[in-house]
Amino acid sequence: MDKKFASFKKSLERVYEHNKLYRDKMRKLNITPDDIKSEEDIQKLPITEKKDFFIDYPYGYYATSQADIKVYHASSGTTGKPLIVGLTENDMKYRSETIVKDLKMAGIQKGDVVQICLGLGMFAGGLSFYEGLRSMGCKIIPTATMSTKMQLFYMKELKTNVLISSPSHVMRIYEVALENGIDVKDLPLRIIRVGSELMTEKMRQKIKESFGDDVSVTQDYGMTEFLGPGLGMECEYGCGMHLNDDFYFELVDPKTKKKTNGNIGELIISSVYSEAFPIVRYATNDLVEVTYDKCDCGRVSPRILRFLGRADDMLKVKGVKIFVSQIEDFLFAHPKFNHQYEIVLNDDNYKDSLTINAEYHRKISKDYQKYLKEYEREIEEEFKDVFGIKSHIHIVDIKTIERPEGKVRRVKDYRTKMVPV
Amino acid sequence: MDKKFASFKKSLERVYEHNKLYRDKMRKLNITPDDIKSEEDIQKLPITEKKDFFIDYPYGYYATSQADIKVYHASSGTTGKPLIVGLTENDMKYRSETIVKDLKMAGIQKGDVVQICLGLGMFAGGLSFYEGLRSMGCKIIPTATMSTKMQLFYMKELKTNVLISSPSHVMRIYEVALENGIDVKDLPLRIIRVGSELMTEKMRQKIKESFGDDVSVTQDYGMTEFLGPGLGMECEYGCGMHLNDDFYFELVDPKTKKKTNGNIGELIISSVYSEAFPIVRYATNDLVEVTYDKCDCGRVSPRILRFLGRADDMLKVKGVKIFVSQIEDFLFAHPKFNHQYEIVLNDDNYKDSLTINAEYHRKISKDYQKYLKEYEREIEEEFKDVFGIKSHIHIVDIKTIERPEGKVRRVKDYRTKMVPV
Repeated sequence: MDKKFASFKKSLERVYEHNKLYRDKMRKLNITPDDIKSEEDIQKLPITEKKDFFIDYPYGYYATSQADIKVYHASSGTTGKPLIVGLTENDMKYRSETIVKDLKMAGIQKGDVVQICLGLGMFAGGLSFYEGLRSMGCKIIPTATMSTKMQLFYMKELKTNVLISSPSHVMRIYEVALENGIDVKDLPLRIIRVGSELMTEKMRQKIKESFGDDVSVTQDYGMTEFLGPGLGMECEYGCGMHLNDDFYFELVDPKTKKKTNGNIGELIISSVYSEAFPIVRYATNDLVEVTYDKCDCGRVSPRILRFLGRADDMLKVKGVKIFVSQIEDFLFAHPKFNHQYEIVLNDDNYKDSLTINAEYHRKISKDYQKYLKEYEREIEEEFKDVFGIKSHIHIVDIKTIERPEGKVRRVKDYRTKMVPV
Repeated sequence: MDKKFASFKKSLERVYEHNKLYRDKMRKLNITPDDIKSEEDIQKLPITEKKDFFIDYPYGYYATSQADIKVYHASSGTTGKPLIVGLTENDMKYRSETIVKDLKMAGIQKGDVVQICLGLGMFAGGLSFYEGLRSMGCKIIPTATMSTKMQLFYMKELKTNVLISSPSHVMRIYEVALENGIDVKDLPLRIIRVGSELMTEKMRQKIKESFGDDVSVTQDYGMTEFLGPGLGMECEYGCGMHLNDDFYFELVDPKTKKKTNGNIGELIISSVYSEAFPIVRYATNDLVEVTYDKCDCGRVSPRILRFLGRADDMLKVKGVKIFVSQIEDFLFAHPKFNHQYEIVLNDDNYKDSLTINAEYHRKISKDYQKYLKEYEREIEEEFKDVFGIKSHIHIVDIKTIERPEGKVRRVKDYRTKMVPV
């Protein structure tokens, strides 16, 4: 039995012992930890869903005593209450090692001047990067919770060469720099590492166009449930996120939760080394495409090539399934828009309507604004060609769309909620 | 030569070598580090003022290379630019030890559930407490930057027994708890440790009345210039802040900067163990009363008994000097007010006018509001008796006064600014 599987087995036994909810699920399937004799057997185990964490809230899914917890983190939960995840001393140590692996994969080195724009607090991302950077010997500028203008001030003054942020915040920095007559290409930035939201390929291109092609723009994938960043991480080649070998990953059919044979499916993750909050077969709700090809960097680990969407990012409009990311790709293919948009759904007279408000790009000549209406009609037709449904496209003024500092919610769904049958 | 003085001498030599600004000042006084042969000689050295840090901004006052810096912190500066202070690895280690001393002095122990409501970021307070608590093995709930209501949610849910915050935020928590029908006396709080703003004795009483007399309410004193908290720290007896023996403290006349013989004066501080940003004879602008009596806790270190004010907290109204803290004490002596007030200064027709808006306490019966005007006149007379000048007292509705989440600015001075002659 290899070290990884042995650790998973130990974790499973602890879960079975401490966690009534999970024990009940396993009894229903008539299995005990003893029945899991190989990695293959993991798929026999029951699935954990986010809503499960709220049944015996907040400690039901812990496998250690609360006395062993050293720090708490949280993410907003499905029930309105935050999901509270605790870390033991070993979890802290393990997470710090994971983050160092992540930072090194991004090309970050000892001595780099790293500005963290992610909040340090209950959100797991910020503090875990802080701890990783501390142990690597980087120089840290922790600028979250101040105005973007002040963040730019520090970038210039302290010669930041690595930025850790979210994609939307990175574009916000670009916007504020423009407003203040700062050319971000003059900044000594070498690496932009994003997380917390998904960066589409189009978004990566926007960021590279804005900050300069020589700036490395990569992302990582993580979630509070698994202690923060570090589930998947892009190397400098930026061609997909290497899955972290410290976890078990499975691809399943999102409906049946049975193993898929292809390289597309919902990602199921099991923790192997987590002590306080180990999760067995977590249904992430993330639909991904994975590749098993060797990466240009030489690593052979499977990579997430792209996210096809999340169940809660999937819109059903007039019976058609559309992912928000698909709409984003569609919009970003038009150079006339900047990166700000929102999707508004309504159901007047019980009929779905889909409106997209998108800001025009500042490079549009003023004359051009006269033709916006005609342009809108053109794009609506194009939209229909691509997605098969009608939409209302509104090209709006720059700065019309709300710019929250944290995660962006692109969709406003005002439709009457139906009780599922 | 004792260890402390030897370290100071080494620091002075490094300052003299790296810091042109300081070297010039010393040359003007015709002294070199060699002339400083004993602790007594320290008073021969030139004074450092906050504005000095902005002459060769931002690195003029550093005594190490920027390559050695591990984290940057900052405080808002006098020129509008933030004062940027860096810490080396040794500074980080030293600061962490200082904070542990501070936390232990407050009675905080390994295993305590500590909620940090101070922001973790460029503000030095938050992250230094985080690092200290980590090394002590406490359980950390880092809840800054979320709504006070959510902070209360975590206090209840995770059974916080130690709160680290600012005095005004502590009272904000009390206020929000009241609004949400939570009795803060039911919370398992044992210790409230405040910093970042000054807590007056009246404020301490308010907090103890609100949270329960068995809750220990103590404060500490620090500044970004000296790496964060830890210059002065109250023990559980809460009768003055023990001066940290790791610094040199002097009491001087605020005008002449000459040594005072009494126990009242402006505090001058010199760093002894700081590596990156050592400061020689910093004029803190803080007027304090110190006692040399042995504390009830058994410690013999001098203690700051009270702050008489800061130069920038000192108001000159109609030629009379009044400290904001004196007005606060005056207001808090009236049980009819809550802790929210503001001081507004005007100079209509070139004559100073002083208005105090203070919120009435929610315990005032509704009938009572009829007599507010009469009550205001009474307090105005009382004010005149105490301070010798006329004032306009306005008793205002609860929640009329602005409540910023960070440091509170109590004074709005709308008078025409005169150029000093």
